Amino acid sequence: MTDHRRLRVALLGAGAVGSQVAALLLKHADELADRAGASLELVGIAVRDLDAPRETDLPRELFTTDAESLIVGADIVIELMGGIEPAKTYLLQAINSGADAVTANKALLATHGPEIFDAADQVGAQVYYEAAAAGAIPIIRPLRDSLAGDRVRRIMGIVNGTTNYILDRMDTEGADFADVLAQAQALGYAESDPTADVEGYDAAQKAAILASLAFHTTVPLDAVHREGITSIDKATIDSARHAGYVIKLLAVCERLDAEPGVDGQESISVRVYPALIHRNHPLASVHGANNAVFVEAEAAGNLMFYGAGAGGVQTASAVLGDVVSAARRHIAGGVGVAESTRANLPIVPIGHVTTRYQITLEVDDQPGVLATVAGILSEGRVSIATVEQTVIDDAALGVPVARLVIGTHKAREQDLSDTVDRLAASGVVERVVSVLRVEGD
Amino acid sequence: MTDHRRLRVALLGAGAVGSQVAALLLKHADELADRAGASLELVGIAVRDLDAPRETDLPRELFTTDAESLIVGADIVIELMGGIEPAKTYLLQAINSGADAVTANKALLATHGPEIFDAADQVGAQVYYEAAAAGAIPIIRPLRDSLAGDRVRRIMGIVNGTTNYILDRMDTEGADFADVLAQAQALGYAESDPTADVEGYDAAQKAAILASLAFHTTVPLDAVHREGITSIDKATIDSARHAGYVIKLLAVCERLDAEPGVDGQESISVRVYPALIHRNHPLASVHGANNAVFVEAEAAGNLMFYGAGAGGVQTASAVLGDVVSAARRHIAGGVGVAESTRANLPIVPIGHVTTRYQITLEVDDQPGVLATVAGILSEGRVSIATVEQTVIDDAALGVPVARLVIGTHKAREQDLSDTVDRLAASGVVERVVSVLRVEGD
Repeated sequence: MTDHRRLRVALLGAGAVGSQVAALLLKHADELADRAGASLELVGIAVRDLDAPRETDLPRELFTTDAESLIVGADIVIELMGGIEPAKTYLLQAINSGADAVTANKALLATHGPEIFDAADQVGAQVYYEAAAAGAIPIIRPLRDSLAGDRVRRIMGIVNGTTNYILDRMDTEGADFADVLAQAQALGYAESDPTADVEGYDAAQKAAILASLAFHTTVPLDAVHREGITSIDKATIDSARHAGYVIKLLAVCERLDAEPGVDGQESISVRVYPALIHRNHPLASVHGANNAVFVEAEAAGNLMFYGAGAGGVQTASAVLGDVVSAARRHIAGGVGVAESTRANLPIVPIGHVTTRYQITLEVDDQPGVLATVAGILSEGRVSIATVEQTVIDDAALGVPVARLVIGTHKAREQDLSDTVDRLAASGVVERVVSVLRVEGD
Repeated sequence: MTDHRRLRVALLGAGAVGSQVAALLLKHADELADRAGASLELVGIAVRDLDAPRETDLPRELFTTDAESLIVGADIVIELMGGIEPAKTYLLQAINSGADAVTANKALLATHGPEIFDAADQVGAQVYYEAAAAGAIPIIRPLRDSLAGDRVRRIMGIVNGTTNYILDRMDTEGADFADVLAQAQALGYAESDPTADVEGYDAAQKAAILASLAFHTTVPLDAVHREGITSIDKATIDSARHAGYVIKLLAVCERLDAEPGVDGQESISVRVYPALIHRNHPLASVHGANNAVFVEAEAAGNLMFYGAGAGGVQTASAVLGDVVSAARRHIAGGVGVAESTRANLPIVPIGHVTTRYQITLEVDDQPGVLATVAGILSEGRVSIATVEQTVIDDAALGVPVARLVIGTHKAREQDLSDTVDRLAASGVVERVVSVLRVEGD
């Protein structure tokens, strides 16, 4: 190891990711110094409780409860506390004192990203956040830099490992949602309060971050349409499989062409929902708690980035890559590169989005019912691609009932939704079993 | 579009990639300027022949045969001429005049990379080369930056589209090598002289570039062990399929632990050869002319990067990403970041490598032959994992002959190779049909 300039690194947070970051910074100090061109001196680790149990053995004297003093004089501040406050205050304090910031905090970036990026731009600092979307998978740099000369058409991401684990086990084992969730909690794949995962909040934060980068547009979290997977039951999964599909919770970030005949501009849609995807699509083979991001770009064509989306040591890899990048930038001099948001395309509500759908209905098993259903769809500008009708042999229902699974051509979400309301009120439909989007083609 | 600083961009070469780069630079000028923070003025395109046919319509007045004058005063020079000279002279001239350099020239980087990177380091310029390995797939930045804090254990890459197209069609259609090659040539997937692709020279250049980045080590091209796919016939593919494998031309870059009991250091191996890979492995589903790079890192775990490995417009995407990055760096100030090669691990010859093997032999169909073969393997420190013997019913062979397909446990290449020589000379082996490595586990 050569003699290096020393950079002071402050770490905020020592949870699953933070403790791994600290351990690897210490363990590989010489190697990291050679790569960074600067020795990375971990000056302290700010925690709330000095006596809390840690996953790794770290020198006791590094710990402090005084984050603010730690930040003063640091060259690089790593924020791994999570949550909005006090993380935001500390991050801004670090930036305003001239430090580069590294964070994995998707909630913070998805809600206060513009304020943080602006603060960094004001002082010429840089914010690194490779770990904030899709964990260990390098997706931020590819979108921010490698694809900066291209035009992204669409991103479809499996960006939440917990829901992918649940849906994958439901699909491969025919298990029930509640059972798999309970097992996922026991194995540590799901939190005791699984809301953030199963209701799609986590995926929506990542979708906002990915869409902001891909479309050079500030995407506020509340502009992301979000649906979770709690309504997906065994029957829905089976029906999807029967039709050649698998159900994945997808974060879809899409560029929409200007409407023909209107002197408008392009717009974007950002949405998170469980969707059917054909089993031949590369995303269909993403199993377990893995993540993958499928990117369709005008020039590059189709790209996919695959790997572990979570996990302490995996996410630590992304954080440390950012720390080395920050150190290299310190050595190289110059100011940080501002986030590119000058396109600032309008974000359309979900009603404007066009996809294919699979509608599953229980209808009266009587002559003329299919004609009535088809008529309502046609009036609603929803064009039928496939129909499969099966008779349900269930005396408990009282009346003879048939199940209709209708695959549509591309339709506008608002038209589809209005049409489903009319179907429900038509008198021939006993129950709307499910309405799912079909993505990936 | 806001008022931007202007950067002068010189393009050397207007072939399949160059003409697309020029067309996109002009077409998306406003958008690229907003993203880069600087307007990217294409000041000229240096070509050998002003009247050569081009793939895209470009303004006639941009073309010149005087590359040297074009380079003078350029802020960013894009080298897409290919080959060693005059590309190298021009690239060094650009760097020495203070320009940032963007190149897709894998041959040049694999043979003269250190000289070019040193020149850039001397003047504080930066060399960008995302397009030099795996075309449109962002793999350079992930290795250079995102994984800079991790330790890569192994890279397995399908980095040559032509050979993947040939092997995939042989596998899926049972076609013969020569037939598929001829069709690939007719479709433009293979050159009229296919040597660089089918003999693995192209893949070896990319392997050298990827290994240099992954292991922070200068990897000279002649340190890359290289074998092509011309010996892979229909029978070999069928036999692989029968055993649950597919054959891919793999670029393998591997970190080897220090030998136990020796006070040594880690080393690396870089090799290109056709190898068996299990059909469950993500690389097995890479079809057609696509590329994919599978990375195993200590902290991040397994990652895969997938996409188009070649094509004019696809590669142009990677080049333009580099141009935007170079422009952002110009605006930000500071010097370029030097390539990290301080680890400079020793590169071991192929004989030191340890993998599993599949050995296919034709042996005399007589009592005791299997015992003799097993004895020779055992003496040679090659441990048998699986054996399958089938009788070949072919009168033309004169003597009764059996086919033995032997799967080995991990063995050292030198031991394996010596053992195969002894088998060939043993008197009981009529023919060594094939010896293939098994990768991916």
